[in-house]
Amino acid sequence: MFQDFDEVSDPSNGRERVSRLRQWLAEKGLDGFIVPRADEYQGEYVPAHSERLKWLTGFSGSAGVAIVLANRAVIFVDGRYTLQVRDQTDPEIFVFESLIDNPPAKWLKENLRAGTRLAYDPWLHTIGEVRALSEAAEKVGVELVPLSSNPIDAIWPDQPKPPLQPVEIHPIEFAGELAKDKLVRLAAAISKEGATHAVLTDPSSIAWAFNIRGSDVPHTPLALGFAVLAAEGPHLLFMDKRKLPIRTEAYLTQLADLRAPSALESEIAALAKNDAKIALDPVLAAERLRVLIAEDGGTVIKAADPARIPRATKNSAEIAGARAAHRRDGAAVAKLLCWLDRQQPDTLDEISVVTKLEEMRRVTGDETQMPLREVSFATIAGAGPNGAIMHYRVSTATNRPLKAGELFLLDSGGQYQDGTTDITRTVPIGQPTQEMRTRYTLVLKGLINISLLRFPSGTRGADIDAVARLALWKAGLDYAHGTGHGVGSYLSVHEGPQRIAKTGVEKLLEGMILSNEPGYYKPGSYGIRLENLILVTPTENLPDGDIAMHGFETLTLAPFDKRMLRTSLLTRDELHWLDEYHARVLSEIGPMVDGEVLAWLENATAPLPHDDKD
Amino acid sequence: MFQDFDEVSDPSNGRERVSRLRQWLAEKGLDGFIVPRADEYQGEYVPAHSERLKWLTGFSGSAGVAIVLANRAVIFVDGRYTLQVRDQTDPEIFVFESLIDNPPAKWLKENLRAGTRLAYDPWLHTIGEVRALSEAAEKVGVELVPLSSNPIDAIWPDQPKPPLQPVEIHPIEFAGELAKDKLVRLAAAISKEGATHAVLTDPSSIAWAFNIRGSDVPHTPLALGFAVLAAEGPHLLFMDKRKLPIRTEAYLTQLADLRAPSALESEIAALAKNDAKIALDPVLAAERLRVLIAEDGGTVIKAADPARIPRATKNSAEIAGARAAHRRDGAAVAKLLCWLDRQQPDTLDEISVVTKLEEMRRVTGDETQMPLREVSFATIAGAGPNGAIMHYRVSTATNRPLKAGELFLLDSGGQYQDGTTDITRTVPIGQPTQEMRTRYTLVLKGLINISLLRFPSGTRGADIDAVARLALWKAGLDYAHGTGHGVGSYLSVHEGPQRIAKTGVEKLLEGMILSNEPGYYKPGSYGIRLENLILVTPTENLPDGDIAMHGFETLTLAPFDKRMLRTSLLTRDELHWLDEYHARVLSEIGPMVDGEVLAWLENATAPLPHDDKD
Repeated sequence: MFQDFDEVSDPSNGRERVSRLRQWLAEKGLDGFIVPRADEYQGEYVPAHSERLKWLTGFSGSAGVAIVLANRAVIFVDGRYTLQVRDQTDPEIFVFESLIDNPPAKWLKENLRAGTRLAYDPWLHTIGEVRALSEAAEKVGVELVPLSSNPIDAIWPDQPKPPLQPVEIHPIEFAGELAKDKLVRLAAAISKEGATHAVLTDPSSIAWAFNIRGSDVPHTPLALGFAVLAAEGPHLLFMDKRKLPIRTEAYLTQLADLRAPSALESEIAALAKNDAKIALDPVLAAERLRVLIAEDGGTVIKAADPARIPRATKNSAEIAGARAAHRRDGAAVAKLLCWLDRQQPDTLDEISVVTKLEEMRRVTGDETQMPLREVSFATIAGAGPNGAIMHYRVSTATNRPLKAGELFLLDSGGQYQDGTTDITRTVPIGQPTQEMRTRYTLVLKGLINISLLRFPSGTRGADIDAVARLALWKAGLDYAHGTGHGVGSYLSVHEGPQRIAKTGVEKLLEGMILSNEPGYYKPGSYGIRLENLILVTPTENLPDGDIAMHGFETLTLAPFDKRMLRTSLLTRDELHWLDEYHARVLSEIGPMVDGEVLAWLENATAPLPHDDKD
Repeated sequence: MFQDFDEVSDPSNGRERVSRLRQWLAEKGLDGFIVPRADEYQGEYVPAHSERLKWLTGFSGSAGVAIVLANRAVIFVDGRYTLQVRDQTDPEIFVFESLIDNPPAKWLKENLRAGTRLAYDPWLHTIGEVRALSEAAEKVGVELVPLSSNPIDAIWPDQPKPPLQPVEIHPIEFAGELAKDKLVRLAAAISKEGATHAVLTDPSSIAWAFNIRGSDVPHTPLALGFAVLAAEGPHLLFMDKRKLPIRTEAYLTQLADLRAPSALESEIAALAKNDAKIALDPVLAAERLRVLIAEDGGTVIKAADPARIPRATKNSAEIAGARAAHRRDGAAVAKLLCWLDRQQPDTLDEISVVTKLEEMRRVTGDETQMPLREVSFATIAGAGPNGAIMHYRVSTATNRPLKAGELFLLDSGGQYQDGTTDITRTVPIGQPTQEMRTRYTLVLKGLINISLLRFPSGTRGADIDAVARLALWKAGLDYAHGTGHGVGSYLSVHEGPQRIAKTGVEKLLEGMILSNEPGYYKPGSYGIRLENLILVTPTENLPDGDIAMHGFETLTLAPFDKRMLRTSLLTRDELHWLDEYHARVLSEIGPMVDGEVLAWLENATAPLPHDDKD
């Protein structure tokens, strides 16, 4: 199993560990220390070695930060984790704050006295974060102290070693463009920014640029490391050679000069001394890099990671891979849904479904000679009220049976060498209520209206987020998350910068893959989320249209549960979309299943009854 | 007539005036000067005295800037004015640039040499503008030189005097809140920003805060002036006493210490010397104010104009006034449309309709004892291809007959003491084509879908702009302007900060009035725009809904032309909205008209045929 169900919460160590940290701070004459969840790569997943926040506090969420002072300790989490943080940390040690309403920069203005010496590790905070903290600190006379080593590492006796998982070459048949050609494009982009170099700090960008994959963190095939790309001259790749099989090392040597991670600071300093103009992405790059460059006389050019848009706009090989991965993944999901349909209520629980789903993905991957490499995230399998917890992760402690009359929300994905998938379906266990069916149908209307959308060049994700909500809004309902996130190509299942959300300021460009996942959550009762991945398709001249329009091609292939539908709430166009989608699901994944699964699929994708529709 | 039709274009003076400016610059050792269209109040309209850009270049558009150097002169305008600027200025003197793609800050980086001394008048540029210019100038070594007097004023022999129109008190029955109470609210807001004072530089804010109206500029009832509000202690109002009738002066004396405009600089300097913390809105306030405060040791606090949100969220008296103004204005528009319907094609031209419409507004205002004070902007009356020019202003030179088979777009509004109106209708002259009717119906679908929208608290204008475009997008069509602008209460017809557009980052709050005006433009052929004003209504709990929702109440009352409709393209909900709207138009404005207008109105608002609709 790629997923485990261990109870990770252990609040009992916090007291002693915080006390050790305080002692360390006191010895150095410091008043406090900021402990973020992030590591130096600012990714969604961090290796065990970098789980400093979890080690110190017990909190295992994917975002958060603690501030430990001599006489108090505060942990900041967002709305997803307000319940979880109370379970996982010791409330006698930690006060809880909202990471959104009262983030550290705001909090310190209102809570710290002038003269307080608040320390931080400049490798673990982005340039933008430190800027916000510094501005706040300056206003109230707090001194922010960057440290040259991390105190948690000093007091964590059995801290795991940094990961050393083998790095493999991502074959050209899946990457679609040679790394050397990508590097030429990136060098030109760096030059265009007026820079001589750019530091790639996001391992997703390094994986994309060099066509390599690793497994240093869970669920995302990253090889942790840094790269310094040059507008002219050799690139530098900082990666532990112990991670590089001979073949990979030989390959990478053709593309860049390989350096040990420990050489990064001195290499950057050397470039800076040589008047380099080095581009850093202020929302991704560690403050430490900025300081290194500035101290040694170099110029920092603030510019977005040059790999983010090329990586986000998939080429034809990546698109072909995504389509294949979604056929395979859809077949696995169909097998699971068929199996689930044949079970009696109260005989299954969440863990048994997650286990079965992973088995279906493995079997289907093996059958098609494209094995499941990982699940793309820990499956969210929420029965009844657990479905209303947006980022629920089932553990042995929370595992709930699938009971008659409840809904079951299943959000999962696979990592295959040809693509990353992410799919959510919500199914009834036994008989759903009319309210559940109404709301399911409103959520589905949102998904369909994104699917049917045409939009002009230049449209941003923020411009269309509401399209998925209009039907819910009319009924006085909404959901508290964005409509879609970007998805990588055998990379991160949450990939920037593309996004369909109020914060989605990037234009939607041909080749971007995003999720289309409206939802509805009734706390304490049930959750509904429906998710397909969609691909931004080329501009197209419509008959009688003035301007070429983009649209979306749906990649995900699995039926929506007809028992949940109230077809009277759908327009004729919406019903047509659903029938055509189901017909496509049958034609594309039908050939990959047989026997009772095929019979089930034929039934699940049969056309819906149409009344008089306009 | 409030509107004139004079040909304002006169490119012939540019050569000699530019030459005089160059001589002035040479005498002062300067290499260039920036001439913006804005005056020190940064409003949409400027008094004749401040039409420096027009005087120098001939260009009469509402936005633009020129840069005059010793051997070249450049004029920057946006997409609305690319044709007009070529008509109005001498192409041998001026090079044209895009204000959007290549604004002055960008242009100067690429076109000016290090050492160039480029002068500007710091009263005519906002803090934000000067910051952008300075950053660009610094990068290339250009020196930006603020001047203490404006060279155009020095070389303009017959420059008009600043306006001295009488200032009147805006009665409490329309304002709905006493000025003294508004000033208490503003003082609290200033204090909350950590400021001791705020400079109100926007005459709309002064008009709102002090409940006064003037007529210093066309179409908007502003009394030009500045105010310095104090968190504690007396407010200062800088306004020429010659503008104040005795009653107004006595009234204003109760609210603030009156000062001559010439005393502003010294008063600000005195406050600054006294350690004042003075709030300025960086997108509204002149750079000169920032410098005055900084030079004398004061603190500049950058904060949005404290009056903008209170002014934008109308109180119940303002809302009642808006409803009454729209009934009156709708009756006038109905009279015009009825009259227009009775004329033969080719017997009218654009000017005759504009003249008739103003007459209808005057007559209806007089009949209802609420006279038309002004038109709220120069009526846009575009026949045939003129309708495709988004900001068309008819003049004797462009005046076009209303020909059979063409569309006629009429966008107009009135200023009444109880409210400001803005309405657009598009009507066929003779028989419209099927294409015109299809596209009209798609535009109307956009307007209706904004009208039917429900949205949760916190929704911004940017989030819903696309709702008005979805039907057009599906047909490969779009329009190149925002969907809606804010509207004042007997104030500016273009009022910020509320806006339904990609740039609309302000939340839509109860009481805000906005326009709802999707369009479609076929260059060289015709334009379609349909515009109602809408009011953000209170949150409402829908049956079975989870959260209270906002919606829009439509204020504008005038029929949509049924000859232009293709009802088969409307959904049942859209048809119902249209029938209900028309029924409301008849019931609210029917009592204000009689005879043939009433008969016309009854026919124009009769229910539409319904086929089988879902």
